[in-house]
Amino acid sequence: MTTTRTDSYRAVIEEGGGAQPLVFVCEHASRAIPAKWGDLGLGEAALLSHIAWDPGALNLARGLARALGAWLVHGPVSRLVCDLNRSPDQPGAMPARSEVFDIPGNSRLAGADRAARTKAVYQPFHADLAALIAQRLALGVVPVIITVHSFTPVWHGTPRRVEFGVIHDADPRLATGIVAAAQGSGLETALNQPYSAADGVTHLLRLHATPYGLQNAMLEVRNDLIATPEAAQAMALRLAPMVSRAMTVNRAEVA
Amino acid sequence: MTTTRTDSYRAVIEEGGGAQPLVFVCEHASRAIPAKWGDLGLGEAALLSHIAWDPGALNLARGLARALGAWLVHGPVSRLVCDLNRSPDQPGAMPARSEVFDIPGNSRLAGADRAARTKAVYQPFHADLAALIAQRLALGVVPVIITVHSFTPVWHGTPRRVEFGVIHDADPRLATGIVAAAQGSGLETALNQPYSAADGVTHLLRLHATPYGLQNAMLEVRNDLIATPEAAQAMALRLAPMVSRAMTVNRAEVA
Repeated sequence: MTTTRTDSYRAVIEEGGGAQPLVFVCEHASRAIPAKWGDLGLGEAALLSHIAWDPGALNLARGLARALGAWLVHGPVSRLVCDLNRSPDQPGAMPARSEVFDIPGNSRLAGADRAARTKAVYQPFHADLAALIAQRLALGVVPVIITVHSFTPVWHGTPRRVEFGVIHDADPRLATGIVAAAQGSGLETALNQPYSAADGVTHLLRLHATPYGLQNAMLEVRNDLIATPEAAQAMALRLAPMVSRAMTVNRAEVA
Repeated sequence: MTTTRTDSYRAVIEEGGGAQPLVFVCEHASRAIPAKWGDLGLGEAALLSHIAWDPGALNLARGLARALGAWLVHGPVSRLVCDLNRSPDQPGAMPARSEVFDIPGNSRLAGADRAARTKAVYQPFHADLAALIAQRLALGVVPVIITVHSFTPVWHGTPRRVEFGVIHDADPRLATGIVAAAQGSGLETALNQPYSAADGVTHLLRLHATPYGLQNAMLEVRNDLIATPEAAQAMALRLAPMVSRAMTVNRAEVA
């Protein structure tokens, strides 16, 4: 082990426009596992699969951010090491099993190991995102937080028909606005599918959006629809106007 | 100006027991104003008054933490520079007026000034507290967060009769438990007095406790009752068993 205790995996921040409130966040952007955690005992199929990252989500999030002049914040480490969208005390934060895969490197993790991963991966990412939001607020720009995810078309052998899910936590305004804006788009769209806040998937929104009363939503796109950079970019250009329209509608409702 | 952009005022953390869930937080512990912000145009009376800090609150919080073997996290800079318990976009974060005092150094603050104070004071404190909570969770200890404040006995010329206020945000369990435990203590105790979450005073609890579902409460003691270190210590020893009892009661309710 040549690594030190000071290893820290910061959030990757791609700047948006100065007055732009929109901040896209992609927690599961990367399947990279730093050398000190090895391969977690997994074979290549698992390491390339949706359990390690959200395939296509970063390309989609970046396409959305660029189309709208928005900010983009993404995670640099695989969720198998430490999931940025789960509280560190939850089993899913460093899962010993995910869908059909056992993850040997995560079984029987000691508290010190959980604490070290939390310090190296979870804390710096959330500190960086919190700092960005605090800075935007101090400058008089009230952020709108949208997390961008992808989901597998087949889960435990069962195909999923939904193509585009929009999930909300306590505040449904933006999510319902996006679903409304998706009507007629030809995308099979559903609110709170393929899972919902009750499944614990809105941790990041609870941590960063809700305390400040910021509008927020979680986008979930079926990953077979964004499997190539071109497909992800095309999807970004389909979704961008829906996001834009929902923000406008919600502002008007608040005013 | 000899200060640099890298000035950063970290949270002061006094360690508690390894398995101890209780974390006391004292946002308004200090009336210190770092030299680069001068005296904000204030005279000595204002700089020593309750608008600059919560007199007695740090002594009370430290007494509580020591009596219970708990953790203590406190702020090193006056709330007049940057209030750790207000969102950076709120007027009260860097108030231009507080009770009967104008604060010249805070009038017509530029966005860049607000952003610089937020970066120097607000962000490091909250990153440090967030890191402590994440570490405790990773180690399997679920924190209980209690903020400790004091209030002035006379507000805009009107005396306040309440001596001990316990304030809650979304989750009332711990606060109502402490109020119940205070019955018969001889302290004039009230729930959500002298103000409540509706007045925006629970920002820190929303940021750090609610997203993780942690039990939490805000304690407010009238500052004439804790004006000396001895009085604060005596009050800590009165309140410690109430906190302890409320935690027990609430654990039983959850189980």
